[in-house]
Amino acid sequence: MSKNRVESFSDGVFAIVITLLILNVHLDRQQALTLDALRNLAPDVFAFVLSFVIVGVYWVSHHNMLHLIKAVDRRLLWLNLVLLLAVVFVPFPASLLGQHLGNPIAVILYALNLMVVNAVGTALWLYAGSHPDLMTESLSAATVRFVARLHSAPILVYAIGAVLAPWYVPASIVLFVAVPAFFILPNPFLDRRLAVLAGRHQSGESGQRAPS
Amino acid sequence: MSKNRVESFSDGVFAIVITLLILNVHLDRQQALTLDALRNLAPDVFAFVLSFVIVGVYWVSHHNMLHLIKAVDRRLLWLNLVLLLAVVFVPFPASLLGQHLGNPIAVILYALNLMVVNAVGTALWLYAGSHPDLMTESLSAATVRFVARLHSAPILVYAIGAVLAPWYVPASIVLFVAVPAFFILPNPFLDRRLAVLAGRHQSGESGQRAPS
Amino acid sequence: MSKNRVESFSDGVFAIVITLLILNVHLDRQQALTLDALRNLAPDVFAFVLSFVIVGVYWVSHHNMLHLIKAVDRRLLWLNLVLLLAVVFVPFPASLLGQHLGNPIAVILYALNLMVVNAVGTALWLYAGSHPDLMTESLSAATVRFVARLHSAPILVYAIGAVLAPWYVPASIVLFVAVPAFFILPNPFLDRRLAVLAGRHQSGESGQRAPS
Amino acid sequence: MSKNRVESFSDGVFAIVITLLILNVHLDRQQALTLDALRNLAPDVFAFVLSFVIVGVYWVSHHNMLHLIKAVDRRLLWLNLVLLLAVVFVPFPASLLGQHLGNPIAVILYALNLMVVNAVGTALWLYAGSHPDLMTESLSAATVRFVARLHSAPILVYAIGAVLAPWYVPASIVLFVAVPAFFILPNPFLDRRLAVLAGRHQSGESGQRAPS
Repeated sequence: MSKNRVESFSDGVFAIVITLLILNVHLDRQQALTLDALRNLAPDVFAFVLSFVIVGVYWVSHHNMLHLIKAVDRRLLWLNLVLLLAVVFVPFPASLLGQHLGNPIAVILYALNLMVVNAVGTALWLYAGSHPDLMTESLSAATVRFVARLHSAPILVYAIGAVLAPWYVPASIVLFVAVPAFFILPNPFLDRRLAVLAGRHQSGESGQRAPS
Repeated sequence: MSKNRVESFSDGVFAIVITLLILNVHLDRQQALTLDALRNLAPDVFAFVLSFVIVGVYWVSHHNMLHLIKAVDRRLLWLNLVLLLAVVFVPFPASLLGQHLGNPIAVILYALNLMVVNAVGTALWLYAGSHPDLMTESLSAATVRFVARLHSAPILVYAIGAVLAPWYVPASIVLFVAVPAFFILPNPFLDRRLAVLAGRHQSGESGQRAPS
Repeated sequence: MSKNRVESFSDGVFAIVITLLILNVHLDRQQALTLDALRNLAPDVFAFVLSFVIVGVYWVSHHNMLHLIKAVDRRLLWLNLVLLLAVVFVPFPASLLGQHLGNPIAVILYALNLMVVNAVGTALWLYAGSHPDLMTESLSAATVRFVARLHSAPILVYAIGAVLAPWYVPASIVLFVAVPAFFILPNPFLDRRLAVLAGRHQSGESGQRAPS
Repeated sequence: MSKNRVESFSDGVFAIVITLLILNVHLDRQQALTLDALRNLAPDVFAFVLSFVIVGVYWVSHHNMLHLIKAVDRRLLWLNLVLLLAVVFVPFPASLLGQHLGNPIAVILYALNLMVVNAVGTALWLYAGSHPDLMTESLSAATVRFVARLHSAPILVYAIGAVLAPWYVPASIVLFVAVPAFFILPNPFLDRRLAVLAGRHQSGESGQRAPS
């Protein structure tokens, strides 16, 4: 299985998941369209935007990881499919979160789903990182560890969110929002480290697919 | 993040959005299939066709913009994801427009969604245009400004449509139809300017991906 | 707009349409699962299979046409989007056909949709065929005419199907099945002509994208 | 029809099918979100995970087969579309399996669908294998037979599952789980044979698409 096919298949799945999320935002045909009806959809819209952004971050992370991986063996292929399985699941807890935003069960299920995605993503990365034949040569052990920490840290944040849910749901929501914000907003800590990685990407890229 | 991946991921999202729109056109299983039942679906079909064409114009614009961009940095990547977020949202107001065509709320929400798409698209373009390292070299400041004006002009038209909606919905609809018509129908003003841009595209393309 | 992007965007839309068709086949959650319930779904399954095969034929035809086209101008781009609009619409009449197989209205609407697809496809082809700068050089006027006839002939068959529907729906269905069968089943007439075209494809391909 | 297009169109269909499966897991809007309500969804989640993994195995198999095929003629193209037709059908019996897990009818329909996929896949492979002009040169008759046996063996397992369903559904489920487990879990028998095939893949790949 060539790395490029795994990458483009995964991209397709990410693109479909991110688009299917909008199906969770809808008004029943019989319902009147009033400002109140729209206001009642606010939690659904919030859950849609949050999930879109979180899946977007996953897509970027997945892409960055695969960029540093040069070959895919059978185990990595299946780890990647398990990762996609967890990503494809997201629209279900996302729909529950939108419809029952105040309900701790929805919040906990959402947190668990995201924890699984991050855990499998970290496992995939560590598996590749411990097989030099699968990785781009220029990658140091320090970079492998840094990326693994970056992917596993949200597991703890989501876990705290899940634990807090029965006491105070808004605290969980703040934590869920904080994770993608950390990855997206200008971030001096991340920028410095990513600049280093990006330098490696760049050179890896020109070396790897110059003729394409 | 290579430009080609951003482009193909975006293309995937556009293709899914444009196809999901048809799910808004349907007859309940219990309903009898009569000519009257079909006639009642006319607004849904209209909203489907209008939204398909508008998203089609967005896809072409997005492609044209990315064609003139040669590299994608982290900010451009996230601006692009925010643009996709706004595009993915379209099926929801499109479904409301089809089911409640005479209702100003549906018309205003639809206009607001399109305004956000055009605003983010313009922001994306201006960000790239102000970073020469991200752009194709041959691009003049005049071209950057022309494209920015082309992308932001519809914001005003949609805003007028939103303002007119509480008074006379058909006027809003005419404005919504006018925007894609301007971009699609033979248009001497646009053709002359696009011919210039196309000349640059062509040379940019052969220079940039000759071996592919 | 490069031809390859138009091609891959169209492929994406075809793939989504062909897959969305299965959503028309479903049992309500409250309904008991019995052999009778499944038997009642037979028309839905038939409409699914028929539509899948017809859209599959459209995909192959679209691919064959674009293979003989070497460049895409603005008009061709929009003709292609109108073609995709008509293809994306198919799941709606397909769902009606499945739910109301005996109803002439469903049959006529289905026929009209397919007639539009074939008409726009023929228009797209004739537009490209009359612009030598858009076509592969080796293409003779005879080939252009043959392909145009091949694409427009089903319009007549579907029209007869629509006309017969109010009198005897099964006759319409036989005609709908006959069209894809003509294109798929071993067909000496078609094979001979396609062999000629295929020869041109082959040489066109090796000449056009040797390095990819 | 070039092999690459068939491959990427098929990949698109697989990606959409695998993602659409999650639509089968949902809670009605009116329903309260309780732990009991979630527990009632356990069969749906199980059917989702099982079907995701089975379609994932099909995707990998399809990719492996097409990797060993070097050209696609008209018959192979249509065999591939029939294969996709059977794969696109999977979400329907998968939804029945989730909603009626104890019902032999759901189990038998699910088994029948999978049997058709494996049967068409084997037919596709045998057709290609008996046409040397369509295959990678290095492929021995023994490899062709081994792959054919690998693809057709599950037909028997699923058939036994279907036969056992009226007596004891859990036995059928165990068999359905066993098939993908055989292909995914570390498997000395399979690993040894796949290593041989992989060696051929590798060399086939570097020879075939070195410049891409």
